[in-house]
Amino acid sequence: MIDLLIEHIQEKKNPTVMGLDPRMDLIPEAVRMKAYEQYGQTPRGAAEALFLFNEALIEATFDLLPAVKPQIAMYERYGIFGVEAYYRTVLHAHKRGLLVIGDVKRGDIASTAAGYSNGHLGAAPVEDHRYMMFDEDMITLNPYLGYDSIEPYFADMKEFDKAVFVLVKTSNPGSGQIQDMLVGDDKIPLYEHVGRLVEEWGEPTRGWFGYSEIGAVVGATYPEQGSELRQKMPHTFFLVPGYGAQGATAKDVARCFDKNGYGAVVNSSRGLIGAWKNKKYADYGEEHFAEAARAAVIDMKNDLNSVL
Amino acid sequence: MIDLLIEHIQEKKNPTVMGLDPRMDLIPEAVRMKAYEQYGQTPRGAAEALFLFNEALIEATFDLLPAVKPQIAMYERYGIFGVEAYYRTVLHAHKRGLLVIGDVKRGDIASTAAGYSNGHLGAAPVEDHRYMMFDEDMITLNPYLGYDSIEPYFADMKEFDKAVFVLVKTSNPGSGQIQDMLVGDDKIPLYEHVGRLVEEWGEPTRGWFGYSEIGAVVGATYPEQGSELRQKMPHTFFLVPGYGAQGATAKDVARCFDKNGYGAVVNSSRGLIGAWKNKKYADYGEEHFAEAARAAVIDMKNDLNSVL
Repeated sequence: MIDLLIEHIQEKKNPTVMGLDPRMDLIPEAVRMKAYEQYGQTPRGAAEALFLFNEALIEATFDLLPAVKPQIAMYERYGIFGVEAYYRTVLHAHKRGLLVIGDVKRGDIASTAAGYSNGHLGAAPVEDHRYMMFDEDMITLNPYLGYDSIEPYFADMKEFDKAVFVLVKTSNPGSGQIQDMLVGDDKIPLYEHVGRLVEEWGEPTRGWFGYSEIGAVVGATYPEQGSELRQKMPHTFFLVPGYGAQGATAKDVARCFDKNGYGAVVNSSRGLIGAWKNKKYADYGEEHFAEAARAAVIDMKNDLNSVL
Repeated sequence: MIDLLIEHIQEKKNPTVMGLDPRMDLIPEAVRMKAYEQYGQTPRGAAEALFLFNEALIEATFDLLPAVKPQIAMYERYGIFGVEAYYRTVLHAHKRGLLVIGDVKRGDIASTAAGYSNGHLGAAPVEDHRYMMFDEDMITLNPYLGYDSIEPYFADMKEFDKAVFVLVKTSNPGSGQIQDMLVGDDKIPLYEHVGRLVEEWGEPTRGWFGYSEIGAVVGATYPEQGSELRQKMPHTFFLVPGYGAQGATAKDVARCFDKNGYGAVVNSSRGLIGAWKNKKYADYGEEHFAEAARAAVIDMKNDLNSVL
C-alpha cells in the first residue's frame, strides 16, 4: 500500500493530504441548509452536512491529491449518523481514485485490535462469508499498549494490501509530556524509542521503494525531532500533521522527507477545507468554498515542492 | 459520576463489571439464526446478533451488576451496523439501570478530542440545539498525547456528570514494552509517571468518596504494579481488566482496592459472556447461555467479596 501511495504522490507530483475534519463552523450555510432541508436540524442533518461538504471538497480537488485523511472523531461527534457520513466519505474518495487514511488512532489489546483491524482494514466474518466494512486504505494507530496491540493488524494488512501509521511524535503542544520523557539506559526520548520499534516492526514488510507498511506519525511542529527521526527511521514512511493552521512551514516539513523528496505525506485540514474563511482566499466567497480549497491545495503543493 | 458508580457498587455489593465484547464464536447459534432471519447472513445480521446477545445477557444480570463495559472494537468490526448495535447496547443497559463504561480508548489532539467528547460523553451541536449521541457514562482514554488530549473532556464531564478512565498499566502481555520503560531522573516506570499525572489531573474533580472523575485503567495481570499504583494514586478510581480469562485471580485484583474494599471495579468479558462455553457452566447448555452468565457473575462477585 505504501508503494501505491508513493506512486500516487509521483503521479500527482504532490505529497499533500487533505484532512477531512469537518466542523459545523467550517461548513458554509448553504451546505448546512441543504442538508437540513432533507433531515431537519438534527444529528442526521448535521451528518449529511458533513458528507455534502466533503463531497464538494473531494470533487474540487481529487485530480490534485494522492490521498485524503478523514478524522473519525469529527464524525463520531454525531453518533451513528456521523459514523455513516464517515463511511460515505471513504466511499466517495475511493470513487474518485483517492487513497484514504482513516485517522482513527486506535490502540487496544490483541483480541480487541483484531476487531478494529477487521472493521477498518480487513473484513468482518459472518458465518462462511466475509465483508469489507469501513475499508480505509491506511489507518493511524496508538502504540501505548506495545507490539501486541499492533501485530493483530498484520494479517489484514498483508491480505488486503493496507498500511498503518503508528503515532511516534504528535504535533500537539503537550505531546512532550509523555513522548519526550527520557527512557532507558541510553536516555533517549520515548518517541525515539517508539520510532526504533516502529522501524523494527516494519522490517518484514518493506516494499519496492524501501519503505515498510508500518508508517509513523511525526508532527511537523517539531522540525528538529523530524530530522532526527527521518535519519533514524530510513525505511519508515511518515504521515506529517501540523502544516499550516498548526503552525509548521514547508521548511519544517521538508526535514521529514528523504533526499529524493519522498518518504512523507503532509496533512493539512483547516488550512485547506476552511480556506474560504481565510483572508487570502476571501475573494472566492462562501459559495465557492470548494474552489477556495482547490486554490489552497495548489498553493500548498507549490509551497512543498519548492523545498523538496 | 464516580460517586454514583460507588453507590451502585455498594447497592449491588458487587464491584464486577461485565465486559460486553461479543464475538460470533461466543454467540449461541439460536441467537445468530434469529438475527439472520431478520437481516440475512450480512453485517447487519451479525450486528443484530451482537445486540440480541447483549440484550439477553443484560436481562439476566442487571440486578447483580453496577455497570457494563462494551468494547467498541467488537462493534466497529461490523462497520456502521456494528456501531449502531453498540449504541443500542448502551441504551438497553441504561434502560435496566446499569452504568455504562464505553471502552473506546480514544486519544487525540485538542480540537479532535472535543469531537470524541461531544459524541461519547457530552452533546453534539446542531445550530442552536445540542443532542446527546452515544451517551456512555464513562469512557476509557489513551494518554500518549499528553494532557491536552485529556483536558478537552473536562467541560462535558462536568456539565453532564461523566467520568473517564485513562490507560496507565494495561493488562496485555506486551504492555511493558512502552509502559515499563524507566523515565526521568528518578527512573520510574512510564506507567508510574502517567499514574502521577492522572492523580494530579483529577485533583480538582474529587467527589464525596474522595475519588476523582479521572480514573485509571490498571491491569490485574500485574498485581505488584497494582499495589504500588493503589498506594501512589489514593484519589484515583481504578478500572481493572484481566480477571478470569486473562489469568488474574481475586487475590491479584484485591491489591487494586482501598482498605475499605472500594476504589476499583473489576472487568471480566469472556469469563462472563462466554460462560456457557466453560466446562464449569456446561450444564446450563447453549440455550441457557444467559443463565450461565448470571451464575458466573454470582461466582465472580463471591470470589471478589471473599478477598475484600
